[in-house]
Amino acid sequence: MSIKLTILGCHSATPRSDAYPTAQHLEIKERHFLIDCGEGTQVLLRKYKMPFAKIRHIFISHLHGDHFYGLIGLISTFGLLNREHDLHVYGPKGIKEIITLQLKLSKSWTKFHLHFHELESKESVLIYEDKKVEVYTIPLDHRVYTNGFLFKEKTGEHRLNMEAIKQYPEIEICDYHNLKRGKDFVGNSGGTIKNNELTLPPKKALSYAFCSDTAYKPAIVPILEKVDLLYHEATFLEDKKELAEKTKHSTAKQAASIARLAMVSQLIIGHYSSRYDNLLKFKEEAQLLFKQVDLAASGKIFEINP
Amino acid sequence: MSIKLTILGCHSATPRSDAYPTAQHLEIKERHFLIDCGEGTQVLLRKYKMPFAKIRHIFISHLHGDHFYGLIGLISTFGLLNREHDLHVYGPKGIKEIITLQLKLSKSWTKFHLHFHELESKESVLIYEDKKVEVYTIPLDHRVYTNGFLFKEKTGEHRLNMEAIKQYPEIEICDYHNLKRGKDFVGNSGGTIKNNELTLPPKKALSYAFCSDTAYKPAIVPILEKVDLLYHEATFLEDKKELAEKTKHSTAKQAASIARLAMVSQLIIGHYSSRYDNLLKFKEEAQLLFKQVDLAASGKIFEINP
Repeated sequence: MSIKLTILGCHSATPRSDAYPTAQHLEIKERHFLIDCGEGTQVLLRKYKMPFAKIRHIFISHLHGDHFYGLIGLISTFGLLNREHDLHVYGPKGIKEIITLQLKLSKSWTKFHLHFHELESKESVLIYEDKKVEVYTIPLDHRVYTNGFLFKEKTGEHRLNMEAIKQYPEIEICDYHNLKRGKDFVGNSGGTIKNNELTLPPKKALSYAFCSDTAYKPAIVPILEKVDLLYHEATFLEDKKELAEKTKHSTAKQAASIARLAMVSQLIIGHYSSRYDNLLKFKEEAQLLFKQVDLAASGKIFEINP
Repeated sequence: MSIKLTILGCHSATPRSDAYPTAQHLEIKERHFLIDCGEGTQVLLRKYKMPFAKIRHIFISHLHGDHFYGLIGLISTFGLLNREHDLHVYGPKGIKEIITLQLKLSKSWTKFHLHFHELESKESVLIYEDKKVEVYTIPLDHRVYTNGFLFKEKTGEHRLNMEAIKQYPEIEICDYHNLKRGKDFVGNSGGTIKNNELTLPPKKALSYAFCSDTAYKPAIVPILEKVDLLYHEATFLEDKKELAEKTKHSTAKQAASIARLAMVSQLIIGHYSSRYDNLLKFKEEAQLLFKQVDLAASGKIFEINP
């Protein structure tokens, strides 16, 4: 049980040989999610040996090119690879039209089912849920409609404390199911044993929040509260704070401020403007407010365990 | 006066780190043309130091992803680079809708003028002309509407033969203009000197033909007759001739057959299927019919001089 985040691309604006635009692969509870899909993402997925077929859900934050121009190519490649599994795409209204228009004009309809979940809400909403994982939007403040995404493990089952259980011969295997679900044990004679005497609490449910692109927006702090891992864009340093405001991006310091206010465990920053050569300055600036900062880099893996 | 062709990408289907889809940069008479624009083309333009701003005309053969998915990203990058020059895009009907829909949804209208020239004709037609260059379509046979492109220098001016001219003191500098245009010299006394006694013929006008993607189509031979340089797709070898027919692609042998029938000077083949590891087999197969064959490769430059 862990969360494994692989940074594919983490630069802003135009792709270059050594600086790919935003894309991330998230493995959470054996689910494989793709977050954003800038031009060249499929090349990076191959480079870092990500399992194409296991990606069933793609989350697109907004319709600026550096976050989705690689999507149509990836979908086409899924088709060429004879994919059979359904693919779900979550993104702003309009994304369905963009993709289907291109598939139509190239007469390349996919044989697998392609589901679009178009987002319009300005509130944080649950957009994905299964037995083990939930995904919520994080409404951001950018020049076009933009969402971040909060990926949360659901709290798991209570873990049986076998040593304790063995003290009570009347507890049978068929009772374990209820114990795992947190119920007290009720014996045939009506006697009750408290659940916490027989089990250990569930492992901590982990969470990852992705926030790009956005102006400084403290209103999102309650959604991010105490997440284990936060990616927050830092396109600029404070020397370009006015430009950040104008273009609705954040500085490294602002990203750190959000991490601090939300009391997250770890912060990753990225989406660097190409005007900066020395990325270490982003880390230094952020660390003035928040110590646990890492710089996103292509191929870098962040793994968190409970 | 020369033609300089730079291969950017030359593989079929999906982009990989070492195998980019179709894109070529053609410099002809100081014009910079881009031919096709698969995903990643802008990265390759940077890698090979092609002058972004000088590209004024982009020719798209057809609307399969490996030939145009990089176009929207390139146009967006032109915008980010504060391009001012007009950009002309020539391609199948539908290309305007694809590009403008994405610009609209990302609220990223270009500040430069973007002109679309949508192609529908099934005949070879003149689609571009200026003082020195002409471009014609080459109707190809593929699964969707597809054109190749014939780039032709216009025949230049006659070159003054100064040694001969000096023999005739009555010929003045102001007469040179007519001589360059091929006119005979008529003296004040009515005497005539033939143009070919006073000038050398114009330099040979060069030509380049691009043909991808297409099934074997001998009907295009008259259009290609005696071109100096021909790029013809060769997705398969003869061992997959049936697959070539089914997918409307060509084999290396078929590409060579077209080159031979059209009596071109030099043939380049590319658009290799990823199933082949040893590309030298493409050359060997083609050379059974046509000796002057080269393999396209990313970064390779073909220069022809009169």
